Amino acid sequence: MDEGVAMAGEPGTIGPNDRYVIGIDYGTLSGRAVVVRVSDGAELASATHDYPHAVMDTVLASTGRALPPEWALQVPSDYVEVLKTAVPAAVAAAGIDPAAVIGIGTDFTASTPLPVLADGTPLNELAEYADRPHAYVKLWKHHAAQGQADRINRVAAERNETWLPRYGGLISSEWEFAKGLQLLEEDPGLYERMDHWVEAADWIVWQLTGSYVRNACTAGYKGILQDGEYPSREFLAALNPAFAGFADDKVAHEIGQLGDAAGTLSAQAAAWTGLPAGIAVSVGNVDAHVTAPAAQAVEPGQMLAIMGTSTCHVMNSDVLTEVPGMCGVVDGGIVSGLYGYEAGQSGVGDIFAWYVNNQVPGSYVEAAAQRGIGIHEHLTDLVKDQPVGGHGLVALDWQSGNRSVLVDHELSGVVLGTTLTTRPEEIYRALFEATAFGTRTIVETFNASGVPVTEFIVAGGLKRNPFLMQVYSDVLRMPISIIASEQGPALGSAIHAAVAAGAYPDVLTAGRAMGKVDRAVYVPNTEAADAYDRLYAEYATLHDYFGRGANEVMHRLKAMKREAAAA
Amino acid sequence: MDEGVAMAGEPGTIGPNDRYVIGIDYGTLSGRAVVVRVSDGAELASATHDYPHAVMDTVLASTGRALPPEWALQVPSDYVEVLKTAVPAAVAAAGIDPAAVIGIGTDFTASTPLPVLADGTPLNELAEYADRPHAYVKLWKHHAAQGQADRINRVAAERNETWLPRYGGLISSEWEFAKGLQLLEEDPGLYERMDHWVEAADWIVWQLTGSYVRNACTAGYKGILQDGEYPSREFLAALNPAFAGFADDKVAHEIGQLGDAAGTLSAQAAAWTGLPAGIAVSVGNVDAHVTAPAAQAVEPGQMLAIMGTSTCHVMNSDVLTEVPGMCGVVDGGIVSGLYGYEAGQSGVGDIFAWYVNNQVPGSYVEAAAQRGIGIHEHLTDLVKDQPVGGHGLVALDWQSGNRSVLVDHELSGVVLGTTLTTRPEEIYRALFEATAFGTRTIVETFNASGVPVTEFIVAGGLKRNPFLMQVYSDVLRMPISIIASEQGPALGSAIHAAVAAGAYPDVLTAGRAMGKVDRAVYVPNTEAADAYDRLYAEYATLHDYFGRGANEVMHRLKAMKREAAAA
Repeated sequence: MDEGVAMAGEPGTIGPNDRYVIGIDYGTLSGRAVVVRVSDGAELASATHDYPHAVMDTVLASTGRALPPEWALQVPSDYVEVLKTAVPAAVAAAGIDPAAVIGIGTDFTASTPLPVLADGTPLNELAEYADRPHAYVKLWKHHAAQGQADRINRVAAERNETWLPRYGGLISSEWEFAKGLQLLEEDPGLYERMDHWVEAADWIVWQLTGSYVRNACTAGYKGILQDGEYPSREFLAALNPAFAGFADDKVAHEIGQLGDAAGTLSAQAAAWTGLPAGIAVSVGNVDAHVTAPAAQAVEPGQMLAIMGTSTCHVMNSDVLTEVPGMCGVVDGGIVSGLYGYEAGQSGVGDIFAWYVNNQVPGSYVEAAAQRGIGIHEHLTDLVKDQPVGGHGLVALDWQSGNRSVLVDHELSGVVLGTTLTTRPEEIYRALFEATAFGTRTIVETFNASGVPVTEFIVAGGLKRNPFLMQVYSDVLRMPISIIASEQGPALGSAIHAAVAAGAYPDVLTAGRAMGKVDRAVYVPNTEAADAYDRLYAEYATLHDYFGRGANEVMHRLKAMKREAAAA
Repeated sequence: MDEGVAMAGEPGTIGPNDRYVIGIDYGTLSGRAVVVRVSDGAELASATHDYPHAVMDTVLASTGRALPPEWALQVPSDYVEVLKTAVPAAVAAAGIDPAAVIGIGTDFTASTPLPVLADGTPLNELAEYADRPHAYVKLWKHHAAQGQADRINRVAAERNETWLPRYGGLISSEWEFAKGLQLLEEDPGLYERMDHWVEAADWIVWQLTGSYVRNACTAGYKGILQDGEYPSREFLAALNPAFAGFADDKVAHEIGQLGDAAGTLSAQAAAWTGLPAGIAVSVGNVDAHVTAPAAQAVEPGQMLAIMGTSTCHVMNSDVLTEVPGMCGVVDGGIVSGLYGYEAGQSGVGDIFAWYVNNQVPGSYVEAAAQRGIGIHEHLTDLVKDQPVGGHGLVALDWQSGNRSVLVDHELSGVVLGTTLTTRPEEIYRALFEATAFGTRTIVETFNASGVPVTEFIVAGGLKRNPFLMQVYSDVLRMPISIIASEQGPALGSAIHAAVAAGAYPDVLTAGRAMGKVDRAVYVPNTEAADAYDRLYAEYATLHDYFGRGANEVMHRLKAMKREAAAA
């Protein structure tokens, strides 16, 4: 065997004929560029660049103007800086010849829309709008359009809009229409001036290629594009007469399928990045969805869970159906040619973080420090060998509401079963288990809806907690496969770039060659699974009692909380 | 006005004609003697003595023999040491002439029984029994007779024993019959040798006077004496044939009414205490019940709550009825001539302590230390000004089970409503509120059962938390009166001594003169009370859902926990 071939799979070893793609993952606080070899997906080097303006959630950086609660804005030029800094840095670190790069792909948080002129200029870059909050990017976690979202949902339900069940019956305040309606109602002059209400995922591709292509993923999941149609003018007028033309005038645009080329790298973008002008630029994408091929999780029935502060579940199917409480189903939403389903748990890692920051004594933190490990690892060590049910607890994982399958952000967390001998690590474990039960609820709902989950694959930071993964395996009674990349979204973007460049015929094929997964790293223990079945039955009873209307105490408590805050 | 008279109410000022009584409170870890002026209840001085053997819950001090889980024993000679040390110390500190002492009274934890010979010699003091755990005092919190208690309750329910409803339908494992049955079944030879199964409350009086008188309070609340009868031989034989004679042979004895003299101080006890032989010694009593006259809480409808790690509620009535879930109703159980009702909350202060020790971050402990205050005070300060309902939480106060009104120690704690912004002090407050809701549940049950609560008076350590007291006032919509003594039980014992000595005709009269209460220290705030009504409605719904059979998840979780521990 030739040494060059033998070493071909090792990052850092460059063959003379190797070709490369760049994947760029635009996260909440920074952008990361990764250099990936086309032949096998080897990740040669990466570089990140923090957004100078980060997230503006209290004041506008430009003028110091105060922002109301629940706002979260960004500055679009920060995204361009990533192209200018992180991309050349990654290429340099990889030690490759930039001429060997054949394509570039991107993914973004979503829904993260911004108002632009016909040429793509963001309105905040016009001097007269620098002090207008609505001129900036509304980051996915901008939650100030809840009133508009509530109205969208109420009117859609009254009118029996056929697209509503495709979103589990609920349009989120995070999405394009709620945020756009807020813009209209709070800054109508700026709304009038805006030519396009464009996802940052597409705006950054526009900066790379010089032309605007709207990606099928955000158009479907965030832009209510179903069966080729947006919500009707009549529906939009019912929300607000001035909103009637929103879809036609501000949103609708040529759709690009995932993996297709949106265009080629412009001379200007070539100068920014140091890459050859004219190479392929793939259609924009979303961080969760783009990860599926990187984890070899694109076949029907393969559910990919991106587990971090929250969990996003994406799964392809060749069947179109309505799964109760899903976030959305979009034709070609993950891979062109299949129906892409999305579900989610609004709180997972952030529940564990909240618990550790608010409910764990200093003695535990000190003990972890003495052991030279993190508090999460210490708590896990203390409780991982306890038999299932040994803590006598069951929890509900709704501290951040419930995204699927109840789709109710007024729900809240519960811990039940505490005694005077209950220890902090036991409640911590009960919260782990509650999130696993939440996942099982989603999986069972898919199974019961005609789109069965046949494999469960995990990406995201929480994949690094072996005990958590084992709990999930036991609770689901399924093997857990783990993505074999620490940079799943960027790898996924690179895969899309390779397809756009013509190196592979489609994303499925490219994913098989370039994606990386360790199959069945965790397998269920039958005895533990049997015991978890009993705990899950308790969870399910409480889930339905508090979540399906038998006792709406959580809604009433949140109402009291709001009243108290207003008083 | 003569200066001697003007100063009469001030402790430490001794009039030449003043007469005194000694009250001794036997607690779990120490005994406290207080010197009290007969005319007005002024507390001149006190002294405490820690029991040398404290609580034996892991090994027998005498021989190092290991004890099983749930055991809790004491050594009777420790109680005598209190007479020899704390009483003379208190008299010396008071600066009074011992000849001015006219009576001595005691109260004790209960049920705290021990096996003795006919002359009162504890069996552990016989050399051949020094290594036998069953020869020692079984402290109230000895919980190893749960199996026997379960059998007593099952058999009593099957036989429709008429006394069972007088105890809310449940005989505790802490009481005389369960502990006696355990002794028989685990050490039958020692059972055979025992002449009396005597409460420590009566045994200490026996040491003072030389004769055995059984007090009406423990006989009724802990010894199942109802309408002059103990449980029948047939019932006892159904538990265990060898137990048939337990009541007749080991328990039954002359009953003394509270406030009566059990006898006079013997020459030996006079030598121990330095007090005059021949002075009155009052009938034994229980720490909670003896406090009622000290707090001027003996009229029908005056509920006294002794709030510490747990809460005990005692209240007199001229009506005999069965209140669902009470601990017991005993004729003359608090004051001779009235029906004494007892209810309780098995966890109150110990829930707050558990929370602080297990669920509060080090940063809070440090902040409290920097302020030079305790963590409880710091948490209270952080949350006390939040409007009612501002935390969005409701909790169930069952971390130590529920004594009244559900009488179910398999229940457990709940916190519902947490979000990612919930702070530790908010949950702390929700636990405060939960215990107040538990109290309201008890008060409403009494009100609905024909023995209405007309005044609410608090004794015990938690009376020192003004915010907690205000919560109780708002939740109950009642003024809260507070005992004006830090030594309520000892003062109550002293009041009984004064009655036994003939200084007052009865305990009610003595309590009016010597008891001390600040009336209506806290009064309900209408706005807060209205808001608490809404939270209480949520508590009540959850109380009934989890506590009355609709969802027995807590029972099942405890069963799983036991299975896991056994595995």
